[in-house]
Amino acid sequence: MDHNFVDAARKLSAEYRDLNGSTFEILEEPPSALEFARIVHISRPVVIKGVDVPAMKLWDNDYLIKKMGDRLISIAVTPNGCADAITRAPDNRLYFVEPATDRMTMHELLSTLENRRKSSKRSKEIHYLQSQNGNLFSPNESCGEFEPLKYDVPEEIPWCSDALGQKPDAVNIWIGDEGSRTSLHSDPYENIYTVIRGTKHFLLIPPTDSWCLQERLYPHATYKRNSLSGRLEIIPSAGEGSQVRWSSITDPCQRGALPREVVPTHIALQAGETLYLPVGWWHYVWQSDLTIALNWWYDAELRGMSWVLLNFLRNPTSTILPVNTDT
Amino acid sequence: MDHNFVDAARKLSAEYRDLNGSTFEILEEPPSALEFARIVHISRPVVIKGVDVPAMKLWDNDYLIKKMGDRLISIAVTPNGCADAITRAPDNRLYFVEPATDRMTMHELLSTLENRRKSSKRSKEIHYLQSQNGNLFSPNESCGEFEPLKYDVPEEIPWCSDALGQKPDAVNIWIGDEGSRTSLHSDPYENIYTVIRGTKHFLLIPPTDSWCLQERLYPHATYKRNSLSGRLEIIPSAGEGSQVRWSSITDPCQRGALPREVVPTHIALQAGETLYLPVGWWHYVWQSDLTIALNWWYDAELRGMSWVLLNFLRNPTSTILPVNTDT
Ligand SMILES: O=C(O)CCC(=O)C(=O)O
Ligand SMILES: O=C(O)CCC(=O)C(=O)O
Repeated sequence: MDHNFVDAARKLSAEYRDLNGSTFEILEEPPSALEFARIVHISRPVVIKGVDVPAMKLWDNDYLIKKMGDRLISIAVTPNGCADAITRAPDNRLYFVEPATDRMTMHELLSTLENRRKSSKRSKEIHYLQSQNGNLFSPNESCGEFEPLKYDVPEEIPWCSDALGQKPDAVNIWIGDEGSRTSLHSDPYENIYTVIRGTKHFLLIPPTDSWCLQERLYPHATYKRNSLSGRLEIIPSAGEGSQVRWSSITDPCQRGALPREVVPTHIALQAGETLYLPVGWWHYVWQSDLTIALNWWYDAELRGMSWVLLNFLRNPTSTILPVNTDT
Repeated sequence: MDHNFVDAARKLSAEYRDLNGSTFEILEEPPSALEFARIVHISRPVVIKGVDVPAMKLWDNDYLIKKMGDRLISIAVTPNGCADAITRAPDNRLYFVEPATDRMTMHELLSTLENRRKSSKRSKEIHYLQSQNGNLFSPNESCGEFEPLKYDVPEEIPWCSDALGQKPDAVNIWIGDEGSRTSLHSDPYENIYTVIRGTKHFLLIPPTDSWCLQERLYPHATYKRNSLSGRLEIIPSAGEGSQVRWSSITDPCQRGALPREVVPTHIALQAGETLYLPVGWWHYVWQSDLTIALNWWYDAELRGMSWVLLNFLRNPTSTILPVNTDT
């Protein structure tokens, strides 16, 4: 590892914290486009109240079940609630493991979540609607699995679209509970994230700390259901090319898991609240209840310095090591 | 020197150039506040036409001389046209040398510049109105040397003030000719720079190249006029504290003066044109004629990552070396 770079980066992390702290601003109402453009330039997370989304008033279980009827939707399923996460397989190697996908109705999803939460002996499998492929709107797909719910969700956030000079690249719906979490990662998107029901927890880390979040190359695998036992198994993907770069910090909430220099920000986002999560910020995400959320992803600005600097901070020496050979 | 940091930074410089090129955009008319907020976020230089400044129509020599009357103004004077620049003194050491200051009327300044330019044997001394202390407007001073010209200059640029959410920190007037240049440096300001008469040349280098612009600590000195000979002499400042951090590249236009990785942008800004020069961009500046210009400096945004990253790129190892000991 490049010690001199690390010394400089450690100073950078400290200076960022000295100037910015780890608190966050709360806006009591949505900003104007101009105000939001200034917020985007500062690029710190902000909680925004009062964003108007019709779904907020409409989406109780009855409504969702009725609207969606017997359409099948794709639900991520894992034995442990960790989809898209670094997981140790029976071969004792670490993999980046994608979830299996079950197809079920909205009714089945909501009952599965409620039953698991009610029953004292909790079920082995965790379901999470997290398809995050622009399941509500995306420029490429004309009509997704959630077509009947589209009318309750704005296709864009006007003050955000105007500030960024573009439309969202994807709009997603998320439904899950305290059984699942989303592993620590950052995205090439400006993210507007709104909680409709429940509580969403974000552990946030600024991009100035990227250098110490231990990204490595992990072999890719997927949970698949064994056709005899019906149990989920980790199946490594074929081919040498399927390496995924991911942080090795699997649970940043665990005491001592984060490097000393990192002071994360915890935001418990309530129903009715919206998080502006700037491009490049690291986030680890979970729910403390049955939680329904929406998010609008806007493509990162590639012009100027920000984008190249985000990459520079992640990958200073251009040597991200494969994990199972260097440990 | 930290080679590993340099390897990473060299890649960063190349990636910046690959994504951004070294050309610049020209706007045919001033942007709206929202459009300019987006431009500030991208943080690349832009030439803007049609910025409305009354001075543009008014400021011929007669007008300036009449308005300013017999008021004395502070004019930088050097033997070589290099004010605030790294200069070798008779003791053979390098210093950061500030200009002497002559006090004269506007009439005397304009005649001095015109005479020197007309006479075949050029005068030994170069005059440049470059006081850059908010000589037209500054929040601290109520009334400066150029009070009579204030009414021809807007106190702020509305679309810029709105985009940045602040008023300018200083507004300056600059009057000089091809005898003088401004040495390579960067400022902690967003800069709106408008040419009123003549042509201003900017050689621009992005902040991603800061790491290779050879900043060193130079002892401070000032040109003072010898009371007997009347000639300008370099007088080192007393005290060990008076060290100035400055780029060692004294003439970036000279072949081979810039490191290989730097591809500067040359902008010849004509009368009536305005340059948006983003915070942290390196600039080397000169005139190709008797040139009058105005500029509005807005404080840099200290919140977020940009500011700490600008410093990180300039000073990765926090070891800027004193110059006369390491050469
Ligand atoms: O809600 C979640 O579980 C994850 C959200 C997320 O990672 C995102 O919106 O980028
Ligand atoms: O006009 C000049 O000579 C220099 C301008 C400059 O450095 C600035 O506006 O920051």
